[in-house]
Amino acid sequence: MRENDFLKWIAEHTPVHSGVPLGIGDDMAAVLLGGTNPLALLKIDQCLDLVHFDLRKHSASQAGTKAVNRCLSDCAAMACSPAAIMISVALPNEGPGSGESFAQELFLACQAAAAKFNCPLVGGDTSIWDQRLAITVAALGAATSNKLITRSGAKPGDTIFVSGALGGSILGRHLSFSPRIELAKKILAAAGEKLHAMMDLSDGLAQDLPRLATASNVGAEIHTANLPIHEDAYTLSENDHIPAGLHALADGEDYELLFALDPEAVPNIVNLTDIPLTAIGTVTADKKLALVDETGKSHPWPNIGWQHKS
Amino acid sequence: MRENDFLKWIAEHTPVHSGVPLGIGDDMAAVLLGGTNPLALLKIDQCLDLVHFDLRKHSASQAGTKAVNRCLSDCAAMACSPAAIMISVALPNEGPGSGESFAQELFLACQAAAAKFNCPLVGGDTSIWDQRLAITVAALGAATSNKLITRSGAKPGDTIFVSGALGGSILGRHLSFSPRIELAKKILAAAGEKLHAMMDLSDGLAQDLPRLATASNVGAEIHTANLPIHEDAYTLSENDHIPAGLHALADGEDYELLFALDPEAVPNIVNLTDIPLTAIGTVTADKKLALVDETGKSHPWPNIGWQHKS
Repeated sequence: MRENDFLKWIAEHTPVHSGVPLGIGDDMAAVLLGGTNPLALLKIDQCLDLVHFDLRKHSASQAGTKAVNRCLSDCAAMACSPAAIMISVALPNEGPGSGESFAQELFLACQAAAAKFNCPLVGGDTSIWDQRLAITVAALGAATSNKLITRSGAKPGDTIFVSGALGGSILGRHLSFSPRIELAKKILAAAGEKLHAMMDLSDGLAQDLPRLATASNVGAEIHTANLPIHEDAYTLSENDHIPAGLHALADGEDYELLFALDPEAVPNIVNLTDIPLTAIGTVTADKKLALVDETGKSHPWPNIGWQHKS
Repeated sequence: MRENDFLKWIAEHTPVHSGVPLGIGDDMAAVLLGGTNPLALLKIDQCLDLVHFDLRKHSASQAGTKAVNRCLSDCAAMACSPAAIMISVALPNEGPGSGESFAQELFLACQAAAAKFNCPLVGGDTSIWDQRLAITVAALGAATSNKLITRSGAKPGDTIFVSGALGGSILGRHLSFSPRIELAKKILAAAGEKLHAMMDLSDGLAQDLPRLATASNVGAEIHTANLPIHEDAYTLSENDHIPAGLHALADGEDYELLFALDPEAVPNIVNLTDIPLTAIGTVTADKKLALVDETGKSHPWPNIGWQHKS
């Protein structure tokens, strides 16, 4: 299939969307930002074969879904609605990820993942090369107010929460997670101005909490006994004998929400959805990060978790 | 250098921009769309080592500049101002494109290329892998009016123009071209509603004109004697004995503007800038594309030029 034919196929498989006056096929796509606020939120994120997924065992659909959901998880982190996504794929000319049907399955999976949030896929770029599959997704979000929910607003005394449970996502959740967009919007609606800071957990709490604390110029105390540990972390622990709590801190790819809330707003967010929200600690003024164990003893923050190295 | 350190380095090397209330470092960046029109224009485009550039002979700066300018050329095609760009890079762990200084030079080149158009770089993503360098650029443009300059508005009787001269860009212009953003905005300002359709020439006139004609549901007659042939096309022709006019039609990567204009507006666009604008033909109602030679004989449209194949 030649480029023109694939572009035609994509255009034919792209539904009309009221927020997209100009869709796939022109030099750029045009997207309407809802409301009166002209603030556009932007994110770009890539997923690479044998880094973020493994085409020897994962399908085109799994790879595309993960690539889109990772980017949408950042929309959740900003408590915004995704207004549009674009995808760029460097397709291998042979081996895993090659061939027309793979590209079509990938495109349809990306589109379907976005459509779950009424988010149109408005642009794309495809190239063929002799290297492995690389998928890049860019997202445009529409801010619902001028007050952005950033990483930098946490205040001493805030209660720190995470959604869901952490650790062991490598057993499958890193491919099958659902971006917490609706949950984030409900938290913002319930807490209002008392929601001070939020981010999504992609590299593990051990790596991500320091980012929030640094951006906010604060410290934090996390109570290990309160950490919501996923059953997948216990499953891993049975095999590798690493404590499940360490998996919860370090594994990454949880794609859950981490947020800091004025304690007065805590009652507002009880039972918002079926997804558990757990208070795991407190923001402190001293700019230090500490893990407090069940006996009340404080330990320095562990330097573990996922970081790309060069 | 670890990921956190590189992110910190990037943040330190990113200038403040009045249109970016939230820049690099949070989950998403926030960009102000100017004016009262909340229409966001979006584009994504990738540049791959040994496909779009060759790191055995091209520098980080050349690769990054090309990647950004290709995307900005699409902003020119929509006659819009770029409001923000984001870059995603998959960096090799060894060989051409590896190492900290390469990544830094690449980032600074991307930033500088965008800054020429007062366009901030607001987001990025970096990963390391054992494959070649892949750069993906996403651009956000701010539409200046609700009337978008698309590929689909050409009308029978319109005069077809190209900017600059075509062919032979492989000799160096594919790396060093300047996106025609200012020129496009001047053409739009001078021609107003009489500018019916526009696109940028990336795959060669032979491939790109049919795209404009198909989108507009029209045909076209192009007069070969009027084609502005670049001196690089003549240089190539001396070596490969392919006529320079064929190079001008087929080579691609010209990144010039192709546009269709109501003939009444032709006097308005004379001498707008130093960049020549050449009338090369006429839009026709019959949906056929033809090349008319110097004797007035009509030839079928040549199926030549650049298309990615799979």
